[in-house]
Amino acid sequence: MERVDGRRPEQLRSVKITKDYIKFAEGSVLIEMGETKVICTATVEEKVPPFLKGQNKGWVTAEYAMLPRATQIRTQREAVKGKISGRTNEIQRLIGRALRAVVDLESLGERTIFIDCDVIQADGGTRTASITGAFVAMVLAMHKLVKAGLLERIPVRAWLAAVSVGKVADSLLLDLCYEEDSQAIVDMNVIMTDKNEFVEIQGTAEGYPFTREELDSLLDLAKTGILQLIDIQQLVLGEEYAF
Amino acid sequence: MERVDGRRPEQLRSVKITKDYIKFAEGSVLIEMGETKVICTATVEEKVPPFLKGQNKGWVTAEYAMLPRATQIRTQREAVKGKISGRTNEIQRLIGRALRAVVDLESLGERTIFIDCDVIQADGGTRTASITGAFVAMVLAMHKLVKAGLLERIPVRAWLAAVSVGKVADSLLLDLCYEEDSQAIVDMNVIMTDKNEFVEIQGTAEGYPFTREELDSLLDLAKTGILQLIDIQQLVLGEEYAF
Amino acid sequence: MERVDGRRPEQLRSVKITKDYIKFAEGSVLIEMGETKVICTATVEEKVPPFLKGQNKGWVTAEYAMLPRATQIRTQREAVKGKISGRTNEIQRLIGRALRAVVDLESLGERTIFIDCDVIQADGGTRTASITGAFVAMVLAMHKLVKAGLLERIPVRAWLAAVSVGKVADSLLLDLCYEEDSQAIVDMNVIMTDKNEFVEIQGTAEGYPFTREELDSLLDLAKTGILQLIDIQQLVLGEEYAF
Amino acid sequence: MERVDGRRPEQLRSVKITKDYIKFAEGSVLIEMGETKVICTATVEEKVPPFLKGQNKGWVTAEYAMLPRATQIRTQREAVKGKISGRTNEIQRLIGRALRAVVDLESLGERTIFIDCDVIQADGGTRTASITGAFVAMVLAMHKLVKAGLLERIPVRAWLAAVSVGKVADSLLLDLCYEEDSQAIVDMNVIMTDKNEFVEIQGTAEGYPFTREELDSLLDLAKTGILQLIDIQQLVLGEEYAF
Amino acid sequence: MERVDGRRPEQLRSVKITKDYIKFAEGSVLIEMGETKVICTATVEEKVPPFLKGQNKGWVTAEYAMLPRATQIRTQREAVKGKISGRTNEIQRLIGRALRAVVDLESLGERTIFIDCDVIQADGGTRTASITGAFVAMVLAMHKLVKAGLLERIPVRAWLAAVSVGKVADSLLLDLCYEEDSQAIVDMNVIMTDKNEFVEIQGTAEGYPFTREELDSLLDLAKTGILQLIDIQQLVLGEEYAF
Amino acid sequence: MERVDGRRPEQLRSVKITKDYIKFAEGSVLIEMGETKVICTATVEEKVPPFLKGQNKGWVTAEYAMLPRATQIRTQREAVKGKISGRTNEIQRLIGRALRAVVDLESLGERTIFIDCDVIQADGGTRTASITGAFVAMVLAMHKLVKAGLLERIPVRAWLAAVSVGKVADSLLLDLCYEEDSQAIVDMNVIMTDKNEFVEIQGTAEGYPFTREELDSLLDLAKTGILQLIDIQQLVLGEEYAF
Repeated sequence: MERVDGRRPEQLRSVKITKDYIKFAEGSVLIEMGETKVICTATVEEKVPPFLKGQNKGWVTAEYAMLPRATQIRTQREAVKGKISGRTNEIQRLIGRALRAVVDLESLGERTIFIDCDVIQADGGTRTASITGAFVAMVLAMHKLVKAGLLERIPVRAWLAAVSVGKVADSLLLDLCYEEDSQAIVDMNVIMTDKNEFVEIQGTAEGYPFTREELDSLLDLAKTGILQLIDIQQLVLGEEYAF
Repeated sequence: MERVDGRRPEQLRSVKITKDYIKFAEGSVLIEMGETKVICTATVEEKVPPFLKGQNKGWVTAEYAMLPRATQIRTQREAVKGKISGRTNEIQRLIGRALRAVVDLESLGERTIFIDCDVIQADGGTRTASITGAFVAMVLAMHKLVKAGLLERIPVRAWLAAVSVGKVADSLLLDLCYEEDSQAIVDMNVIMTDKNEFVEIQGTAEGYPFTREELDSLLDLAKTGILQLIDIQQLVLGEEYAF
Repeated sequence: MERVDGRRPEQLRSVKITKDYIKFAEGSVLIEMGETKVICTATVEEKVPPFLKGQNKGWVTAEYAMLPRATQIRTQREAVKGKISGRTNEIQRLIGRALRAVVDLESLGERTIFIDCDVIQADGGTRTASITGAFVAMVLAMHKLVKAGLLERIPVRAWLAAVSVGKVADSLLLDLCYEEDSQAIVDMNVIMTDKNEFVEIQGTAEGYPFTREELDSLLDLAKTGILQLIDIQQLVLGEEYAF
Repeated sequence: MERVDGRRPEQLRSVKITKDYIKFAEGSVLIEMGETKVICTATVEEKVPPFLKGQNKGWVTAEYAMLPRATQIRTQREAVKGKISGRTNEIQRLIGRALRAVVDLESLGERTIFIDCDVIQADGGTRTASITGAFVAMVLAMHKLVKAGLLERIPVRAWLAAVSVGKVADSLLLDLCYEEDSQAIVDMNVIMTDKNEFVEIQGTAEGYPFTREELDSLLDLAKTGILQLIDIQQLVLGEEYAF
Repeated sequence: MERVDGRRPEQLRSVKITKDYIKFAEGSVLIEMGETKVICTATVEEKVPPFLKGQNKGWVTAEYAMLPRATQIRTQREAVKGKISGRTNEIQRLIGRALRAVVDLESLGERTIFIDCDVIQADGGTRTASITGAFVAMVLAMHKLVKAGLLERIPVRAWLAAVSVGKVADSLLLDLCYEEDSQAIVDMNVIMTDKNEFVEIQGTAEGYPFTREELDSLLDLAKTGILQLIDIQQLVLGEEYAF
Repeated sequence: MERVDGRRPEQLRSVKITKDYIKFAEGSVLIEMGETKVICTATVEEKVPPFLKGQNKGWVTAEYAMLPRATQIRTQREAVKGKISGRTNEIQRLIGRALRAVVDLESLGERTIFIDCDVIQADGGTRTASITGAFVAMVLAMHKLVKAGLLERIPVRAWLAAVSVGKVADSLLLDLCYEEDSQAIVDMNVIMTDKNEFVEIQGTAEGYPFTREELDSLLDLAKTGILQLIDIQQLVLGEEYAF
């Protein structure tokens, strides 16, 4: 099966990560995966949420949003509706949880890294692009803390990236664009480290259940995509950002 | 390792499903898994959401809540806070999505099955108990439609149940109670059919990533639990409810 | 006139109070009056609202809600609407006010008894059943404080119960079920102590005003019902809970 | 006991009702009871709420609010808090219910009388003053409908007024001002017609229950106040407004 | 062109300012400009907003609202909608900003003057009437602080009033009533001091842009109106309130 | 006085307008004025708000927001606070009003141009940059309607741009950056057409009133800036977009 944009089943879209995209943020990137574009910023706050006070640990949390015309049809602003949708909530909880899984919160000290992922153009895979970009923005912000003498080293235990995989008709595909995603009968988001370990797996049958064999093949596909994304992250950050 | 309540690692808590628990609902159960107790009701509405109008298809949707004193420490009502939490949103979206994966929405016709899962006592695994109970409540409500001549048969393609598995210290455990859940370093909810197919997998590393081998073992453990739960569902419903 | 469920005009529905119904709450009951079923819990909090700080007095407050399928037609959740209805507000203010009228707040000390009344099945008289049940849950929670040595005695001045009375067609009836309530032309809720004293009277003409003589007869009817309810409360609690 | 403002126990405060106080409303009054001042307006809307559509009946409903500096200490606006308080809800439901009890909704036809009671100065008894004033504003608006040929006669079955009574220390008092109200141990609002019939009785024990004898005396006291208020209403409206 | 109410183009409506209109407020007026009537109160609070703490400066802030039947067609309450409209927000920010421009916040000390402007009848120019009235209410409240020995003198640098001007058809008009305002093609609100200085100019083309010459003429017209309003303010306050 | 970024008093910051910046919107630009960067999109909706239905007229409306890290200190999302701030409301009302002043709404037909201005980096002058950019995005969207044969010509009567001017210390400055804006004692936003006509003037004294002479000089300064901005708009759009 030919994919809608001519890619091979196991091929990522073209990926571009522009670092220091927003002047005022401690860390920031513009990540582009095909036509999906997300601004990720990392803000350092010298305090932690109430439930962590006095525990000598830090925190990483995230918020996610889309500009109204990121989408083909204009989406109403959540600020206008007066509340965050269920979908937004799920995504921002996922981003924060994934990043925390690779951060050494004790070494971070009593401070919070506040991640903002704002989708300015949406063509599928916005949550996985957000995680891949947010990881870089977070490392950039942590590096500033190191340079300022506030941290000894970047308190991260592994590189982290995310990608979607899915079953469309009879094909298993890597990195679904919007058109593919809307036809998928299995939809899976996988978040992994550079050590081939899982941080989160979310696999959903859209109408039809899937077998253990399909699950295994999708996880293999995700792994190849994630290793490529981590290569790009390392290239963008350069050797200075080792951990 | 001895579990806190003396169970073996691969042992479910005692399960009890009481059908027709609420007089006015078209379908209802009280499901008890150990100390976790959830009232699940199914309401039939002879209309569908706007996005489905005129498509000759039905819909299944769900809401989830906890009574304030379901928990050890009283939890503030979401109605008082004026908004649904991110956690609640995630859970109710999950319940609806899982049930829809085994329902033949075309055969259901232009009507909605509205599921309510209200936790009256919470000791871990409330979302998986909700799904296992909600499936039974939904089938009870559909059976009423069959008896009333509105449906030819119960429009369900497979039996469905859900269970949690996780890694606590070095042990892989089935059906975590609250105390185990709060110490787990891997936490996974698995929803499967009686045909050994997956409807949803949500695996999360709480602080430490997990390997492919651990994933495989956890999925095996989940499968044994789900088959037992489906046996209980079938016993409760009896032969009249075949599909 | 024969009542819809065959009762005599001055007859209560069958009443059942199950104590310690919810494991985690300091005090709890399930109260059933005919088909009306309410879970009442009492939570002890070792603080008082801001307006009482430093006054050496305690507080009793209440919240009330209904599960969506407590009713014949599914009711939308207030958490989904994002606000508490006027009816809910009136009822929970009434429950709190009634309980405070018989509690010695000075003896309670600087702590709050937080009452939750959650209707799981509604067939009329939910607010009066809530008060009758909440009183028992509150006493159970206070008794725990006595056993823990935090209070010398249960700081309650009188037994308290509530019942509805009303005029349906030409009959004055005790303890209206939903069908009677919806046809009543006078509707009255009466809250009294075991000493024949009033704590609250709320009488409303639904369309047609009522006379002083009707008022007097309805109050007599309420009194007989309340004394029976207090007998049941005393039986459930047993002699250990004297005050 | 001398009352704080020198009145006798059974004496109303000075009452003044100014009709047509707001130019644009179909009916309006400024009612002053001592220092309590309320603007009551009645708006005619040529439609009914959804639950009444097609039933050839009208509706009367009410909203109540206070200006922030109606009170001694500035009160935060409910619009700023983003929600209506429980107290406001109770009061506006009471006003609407009381007026409906004397209106012939069938004769009113499919239209709504929308009452607004806005307290500009609050010195106790704002809900009873609102009802007494709202009745006059409603009749003024109905009279306009009669003059416009839309109604044959004012569709009201009885005159209606409201007053508070209460027990302060050992005295039973009529028409409590704020200072008295805040010390009352029994607080009762009574709404009656000119035919000595009750439309609503709300009696509350503030801390201490009250006896049947006290109830009887308070109702007698309320009756004398209400008859005086109805005299004033009749004087203000004049003979043209007979019904 | 004859104006709808017979005024000359450069003529104000009849203006009346009644001081001490609300008993409980530290400062209050009822200001009437033609049929527009606004209750303005000033409340003194002995604290400042968080962003000013510890700076030895005071603050002046304002809220604005309309009674539902201030307008010809009933307006829904913002408390019922659950949020403040954009228009209300703009007006209350404007009132606060304008008053602060003539107040010596350092001399005021760490206290806040809280202004409430509640329109009870609206016939155009409610925001400018609010400012003109609020200035007087504020001075009255400050004068109480002087009399109480809390301030040495009224901390105001200039008299302040506001008026609307506009272009209706071909005429430039002072102090537009509602009917004129709704037809205006240029609409301008001007706030000035007694020293002929501007505090705020807001000029808006309603559909058609305006020229520099028109701007100049409108500002001249506004100036004559404002000087008359300040004369009235001085007359109402009397010599005691000099600053 | 040297300006903080070395500009002359009457010098604009460097301006860049990138058209078709967002793929899915009917019209879009990224406008950069110095470090201030705003994404402006125009969405065409084939319907009008209820108050315009059936009048054969179109509408232009706008929403404005900032990404949380557009600012030096992270700003909380309005969607999280659950409401739009007063400042946001003022700005989006201003943008819509300004654009409508130069659009021929009759020629636009019964459709709405929905403008979104999202500030991704904020260094002062975000509302004026939004208007200058939104005008271009709107014309791009209208041009698509012309090309699609839905409009005969672009229904715009004049070019439109906006700029800020202000008084900082003793200097009158054009196009204030954030640091200048925060020190300004007079702050003015001016919106003009290419025909030297005003669409909106908003001048505010920040603490100290300003004179008629200062007003005149500021308006002259604004005019020179606006003419340069319109030149840039015309260059970006090219001759194809004449109207």
